[in-house]
Amino acid sequence: MPDRSEKNLIEMVNAKLTEYLPEEDILQADVITAMRYSLLGGGKRIRPVLVLEFCRICGGDEQTALPFACAVEMIHTYSLIHDDLPCMDDDDMRRGRPSSHKVFGEDTALLAGDALLTMAFETMLSEESVRLAGAQRAAKAAGYLARAAGAHGMVGGQVIDLMSEGRSISLETLKKMDEGKTGALILASAQMGCILAGADDRRMAAAENYARAIGLAFQIVDDILDVTGDAQTLGKPVGSDSGNNKCTYVSLMGLGNAEKTVEELTAAAVEALSGFGGDAGYLIELAKKLAARKK
Amino acid sequence: MPDRSEKNLIEMVNAKLTEYLPEEDILQADVITAMRYSLLGGGKRIRPVLVLEFCRICGGDEQTALPFACAVEMIHTYSLIHDDLPCMDDDDMRRGRPSSHKVFGEDTALLAGDALLTMAFETMLSEESVRLAGAQRAAKAAGYLARAAGAHGMVGGQVIDLMSEGRSISLETLKKMDEGKTGALILASAQMGCILAGADDRRMAAAENYARAIGLAFQIVDDILDVTGDAQTLGKPVGSDSGNNKCTYVSLMGLGNAEKTVEELTAAAVEALSGFGGDAGYLIELAKKLAARKK
Repeated sequence: MPDRSEKNLIEMVNAKLTEYLPEEDILQADVITAMRYSLLGGGKRIRPVLVLEFCRICGGDEQTALPFACAVEMIHTYSLIHDDLPCMDDDDMRRGRPSSHKVFGEDTALLAGDALLTMAFETMLSEESVRLAGAQRAAKAAGYLARAAGAHGMVGGQVIDLMSEGRSISLETLKKMDEGKTGALILASAQMGCILAGADDRRMAAAENYARAIGLAFQIVDDILDVTGDAQTLGKPVGSDSGNNKCTYVSLMGLGNAEKTVEELTAAAVEALSGFGGDAGYLIELAKKLAARKK
Repeated sequence: MPDRSEKNLIEMVNAKLTEYLPEEDILQADVITAMRYSLLGGGKRIRPVLVLEFCRICGGDEQTALPFACAVEMIHTYSLIHDDLPCMDDDDMRRGRPSSHKVFGEDTALLAGDALLTMAFETMLSEESVRLAGAQRAAKAAGYLARAAGAHGMVGGQVIDLMSEGRSISLETLKKMDEGKTGALILASAQMGCILAGADDRRMAAAENYARAIGLAFQIVDDILDVTGDAQTLGKPVGSDSGNNKCTYVSLMGLGNAEKTVEELTAAAVEALSGFGGDAGYLIELAKKLAARKK
């Protein structure tokens, strides 16, 4: 059942994202094509699924959550486009395809990222979205996502990353960096789902505990796979972190401790949702699946 | 009186912008410093002043409009930082100082732009801002700004610019480009002021007519100054447009027609505000001042 549900959720998100970016847009053709290329070019859709599922298990309506689910994916996608640019990580490949600037040029890739970030807010603050969610909840949810994406959230994490380049950093700084780079959007996704359903503080806190745990576990698993993973399954070379002398959870904690921490975090994520009963089945499966993933 | 009022308005905006970006921010120090450098480094503050003034003359409260006034300046500033990047216009100077990437590096400049765009929405959707404006108006105003800044507004104009590079374009395309690049934020500023004051449709339409007229006039004056201006007064070289074989209002309409059009647009802007009586004094002065400017 979780697989069927996941397929449906992802299809719903993909259909709506396509609707937001019609192919027929002529005047701004280049940038719309670039936006579509990155936004509709695969991806696990973890963040939108969290928005939809937390909204549902808190008693809210999926259709209300959908614009916000799409918005967080737009922000995630813009961050990947900008991250791949030559002045940042200079990555030529993303999700098994040439990265945006390799296909469209740096200028269009930069603008496509800017436009996707902006479109996230257009989407959440559209008449339809505000009517469905109510202005109070729409403004609150969009405000949470804005803070999560900004200088004290995702961009903040990238800044710590830039500032740490070529230096050894503490486990505390590494966690702080990842709380920004990947944790903040995952946390905001869970929070937005709750806000849009009008969840009480207890449920919001449970969702936050779950999201913080899977966010950190996700990052530790990434580092573990860089050591133990299979290049072909991963679709990217392994050992790149140690090759780059990068501080990782594995280098700072040791492989055994890193694996143990993932187990503990996953158990904590599952435990956080105990109050939701069977309704949280899919989210519990998701936590376990992310911990056990091989790519 | 207009001058005193303008000084006060600009000081109010600058003080609030400074408040939003405290210097003591340690963890993300580099990017906050870069954000402050561009945001607090001068600028005419035309857009924030439009938000504040249209809110006031429609009977709204300046304090309610202030976060939105700051937000539009953040978006304007991010667009300048990204525009100056080597992969875009590759400009080393901005407002008489080295541009962001010359001071902080391309990576930090890119992130400072991203963070400023995001911060605009953090600011408009903050608890304080939503409480003052009411959620309905806050969401509506922020939604207008998002659309104005995105793929069908400001970014859209930049895309037309990229696509037109090295080609001759029609007057219609040039207008479309400028409606995006500069017109959209100017229009949204006037609209936000009206929305935050709860202005009726008639006042909103008047504000839009004013904003469209001064937005286009502003751009035509830019092109005229590139031909007739004084490099020292302008703070940049003149004749760069014709040197680059760029289609401008002057090259497409002729200098005389361009000057006549500015006069007509300015008269139309003044006429649009006739219903506001003496209250619109400052905005009328502003339209005339922008038309007569020498830099």
